[in-house]
Amino acid sequence: MDNKTEDIKVKKIKIIPLGGLDRIGMNITAFEYEDSIIVVDCGISFPDEDMLGIDLVIPDITYLKENKEKVKGFIITHGHEDHIGALPYILKELNVPVYATKLTIGLIEYKLKEHHLLKNTKRKVVKHGNSIHLGDFRIEFIKTNHSIADASALAIYSPAGIIVHTGDFKVDYTPLFGDAVDLQRFGEIGKKGVLALLCDSTNAQRPGFTMSETMVARTFDNLFAENKTNRIIVATFASNVDRVQLIINTAHKTGRKVILQGRSMVNVIDIASELGYIKIPDNTLIDIEQMNNYPDEKLVFITTGSQGEAMAALSRMADSTHKKVSIKPGDRIIFSSTPIPGNERAVSKVVNELSRKGAKVIFEDTHVSGHACQEEIKLIYSLIKPKYAIPVHGEYKHRTAQADLVNNLGIKKENIFILQSGNVLELSEGNGKIIDQVPAKGIFVDGLGVGDVGNAVLRDRQQLSANGVIIIVLSLNKITNQILNKPDIISRGFIYVRESDQLMAEVKEVVNNSVDRCIKHNLKDWGKIKMEIKNDLSEFLWTKMKRSPMILPVIMEV
Amino acid sequence: MDNKTEDIKVKKIKIIPLGGLDRIGMNITAFEYEDSIIVVDCGISFPDEDMLGIDLVIPDITYLKENKEKVKGFIITHGHEDHIGALPYILKELNVPVYATKLTIGLIEYKLKEHHLLKNTKRKVVKHGNSIHLGDFRIEFIKTNHSIADASALAIYSPAGIIVHTGDFKVDYTPLFGDAVDLQRFGEIGKKGVLALLCDSTNAQRPGFTMSETMVARTFDNLFAENKTNRIIVATFASNVDRVQLIINTAHKTGRKVILQGRSMVNVIDIASELGYIKIPDNTLIDIEQMNNYPDEKLVFITTGSQGEAMAALSRMADSTHKKVSIKPGDRIIFSSTPIPGNERAVSKVVNELSRKGAKVIFEDTHVSGHACQEEIKLIYSLIKPKYAIPVHGEYKHRTAQADLVNNLGIKKENIFILQSGNVLELSEGNGKIIDQVPAKGIFVDGLGVGDVGNAVLRDRQQLSANGVIIIVLSLNKITNQILNKPDIISRGFIYVRESDQLMAEVKEVVNNSVDRCIKHNLKDWGKIKMEIKNDLSEFLWTKMKRSPMILPVIMEV
Repeated sequence: MDNKTEDIKVKKIKIIPLGGLDRIGMNITAFEYEDSIIVVDCGISFPDEDMLGIDLVIPDITYLKENKEKVKGFIITHGHEDHIGALPYILKELNVPVYATKLTIGLIEYKLKEHHLLKNTKRKVVKHGNSIHLGDFRIEFIKTNHSIADASALAIYSPAGIIVHTGDFKVDYTPLFGDAVDLQRFGEIGKKGVLALLCDSTNAQRPGFTMSETMVARTFDNLFAENKTNRIIVATFASNVDRVQLIINTAHKTGRKVILQGRSMVNVIDIASELGYIKIPDNTLIDIEQMNNYPDEKLVFITTGSQGEAMAALSRMADSTHKKVSIKPGDRIIFSSTPIPGNERAVSKVVNELSRKGAKVIFEDTHVSGHACQEEIKLIYSLIKPKYAIPVHGEYKHRTAQADLVNNLGIKKENIFILQSGNVLELSEGNGKIIDQVPAKGIFVDGLGVGDVGNAVLRDRQQLSANGVIIIVLSLNKITNQILNKPDIISRGFIYVRESDQLMAEVKEVVNNSVDRCIKHNLKDWGKIKMEIKNDLSEFLWTKMKRSPMILPVIMEV
Repeated sequence: MDNKTEDIKVKKIKIIPLGGLDRIGMNITAFEYEDSIIVVDCGISFPDEDMLGIDLVIPDITYLKENKEKVKGFIITHGHEDHIGALPYILKELNVPVYATKLTIGLIEYKLKEHHLLKNTKRKVVKHGNSIHLGDFRIEFIKTNHSIADASALAIYSPAGIIVHTGDFKVDYTPLFGDAVDLQRFGEIGKKGVLALLCDSTNAQRPGFTMSETMVARTFDNLFAENKTNRIIVATFASNVDRVQLIINTAHKTGRKVILQGRSMVNVIDIASELGYIKIPDNTLIDIEQMNNYPDEKLVFITTGSQGEAMAALSRMADSTHKKVSIKPGDRIIFSSTPIPGNERAVSKVVNELSRKGAKVIFEDTHVSGHACQEEIKLIYSLIKPKYAIPVHGEYKHRTAQADLVNNLGIKKENIFILQSGNVLELSEGNGKIIDQVPAKGIFVDGLGVGDVGNAVLRDRQQLSANGVIIIVLSLNKITNQILNKPDIISRGFIYVRESDQLMAEVKEVVNNSVDRCIKHNLKDWGKIKMEIKNDLSEFLWTKMKRSPMILPVIMEV
């Protein structure tokens, strides 16, 4: 191939979301240009209700492992679990450097330390406005606003064109701390000509603008003024360090001491404080042991548990299992958060428990979203004016809402891609299409096991959870292959023991009849004997009680 | 005791909520005056997430059974599941007459028929404005508005005073069908002097007034006009017959045919239509088999599944398992409902599936609540002016919100009772207090079994669901009591089979070591042998994989 031919070769980039599109969370997207791959974010997803016993779901990186030598590193947009949570699992299999802003790296390091990976992982802090070079890519970090400090959008420069990835973002013209999103830079890059924009869709169904954090500050001023004589407990996300700073400042202004509660609250604020992202006035933070030295109206707790998590500090206060804090009438509990879809019932339960103890629970205007609403999405598209639009983050319905929105801004339908995880999207100036599909189903983590629980195991857990298990033990003579005794029957999770006497007698009879029949027909095939027992008992139980426990015949050879 | 003494005896009534206060649904309240008990409503509750395998929860009527001879009958306020659903179970144990309005009786009869109880149950239809006499009580039915036709409030006249129970209600001055709530009668009864008001709290945290059903009618007019060329599918509750009537009328006006989908939709509309609560214009309703005779824009489906229920017609359309209806691009899906707390994620899943198939999903202004907001609650209290306030329906937080509200209306704190299920509240003109506690925990129904699954069984199901089960079978010589062979090990729901080879070998070794130790120490106590094995294996699995499956050692004597 001579130089001339090469010059006119169409330059193509591949964009491969390996998670985050078919399920919430688990954000991870590979960008591939010839021999270079960079990966943006590496998050976990929390299990669906039917994933029994699963602790979390991490991305399937088969594709990255197959192209190991190409992978230059992970670029992380911000420090939320759905963007960093899978790193400790993934880095064990694919040890490449990690690039992010200072607070984000701080939070990642805390995770790596827990997994004993700190020593072996290269990390690099990148400042907003700066770039890194990785293979054929240059990646520029751009300041945005979000519900965690130090969030970034990325401008990814490749020979095939510029791609902008917003990360999770919103536009806050008046953030309480730090700078506003760098809209000028978005405009400047837009003017250069952008091939594709990957933009946050989470709030794409909501009209208007997300409110500024200053609104929350006003609410807190009012609430602290209105409840001068009460103890105040605020529940929020530990990672929302600006929110925590706001609460600390309000406490300080009103002469209250602050007590942090919950493991992640203490740890994250520790990290943020060490890195300079939070400034705690002297003599404001006190230890819980000092609580009794102050009257209620001089105290503010900042606690985890805003999502109704059963083991979090707030839930333990609510159900009276917290060792140090008892809720009492007059307490003011401020939820500075909204329930993530799926957590509504858990939050409701905690609120009811708190109310039952006489506390007043406050929700109104105590939180603003971290994601861009429709007008902000339109603003970013108008600054960037990409050729291709790739709505990311949020559920399918949110991404189609963004698609409708940007179609109205003039981006042609065929240039908008609602991708599924594993799609390989190839883009060039002239053309964009999905050319392939790679594995991207998500891997289950259960305890320390990664990927050792699959769908068959989950189906068994489903059946066990619904109706329990009945175990039938038979013994066969090793030599004659004859059934030696009446079967033993054990059940768990099936029926209340005292109620079961009568029923278990009937079960025994059904099983004995099956066994007798097997003996009579001289059945010696263990599989067949088990099947006979299983079928007879299943039918009996379904007819009698409309239940189908797992039935496990076990044959012992003696 | 002479007549004079009797005349001045303080007359007392007992109010005993047997369910519905500690958990949503399961409304059932007994009113007792001397030898007469009447019971208002008899509903089910749906299981919490941790009640694995439980289909529904019904009230514990121990107290009613103990006072069988006093119980005069059930008075049912309206035909929703949380008010009638437990009748078939309860009537089997306590066969007393049932009183309700016509549609409510119609829906109850349908249930009784399914349970073969129709013949043996006395039912009586009561018209709004009429009363029935039961023992020492007279009960008057008063017209209200709610999200089901024929809903009633009750005025309960007793020698101890008048008690008003609103049932579930809202104030709709302009209902689309039937009359508005009979506010005049509430005023008239209020003027007589009311001892206590039991009032719906569901929306007590919401300011203002619940919108009228006419607002929904306007939305439907607009939606049908805007989507003239599309097929329309509306999901709503079957029991909301006025809503279904509205949709049918809108379809008729715009020249569309209507197809009903979902078993309960077909059945309820059948009953409502037979009883005259719904009027279907000729040639409007068609069978699904005729669907293909009409173009899309001439069709409207009215379907179940508005709560994302996995087996409902809409969910089956969404996941392509519906036999007759395939969702296609351009379809308009109108959710005429809001998700009940806890169902948000299921609804979201269905919406995503529908969007993925190209349908447009519409939520806005397509539904109004069936419950009174703050201004309506204040209105009812201002008409009734009870001495005692007993907020009912809704969660604890809603009932305390009503308490705050009516405290501001001038009802003293000590005259407001936030009851718990099983509380026995005794009221007289001069005094109100909780004097006793009766069983009211709720009984689990699993398949055909009622009450045979308790907390121990649920705890087993929890453990089984999280990590599965490992069964270890040993055989002992009957005479020598010696362990005969190496144990057999079987697992289900624990680990993926292919991954497990290595692990299961290790498990075997751990168990063999335990067994060897038992043999060495000549252990013969089966309980101790089992405990040894269980402890060793639990510890091994927790250390190695942070999992705790149920471990079941089984000893066979041969």
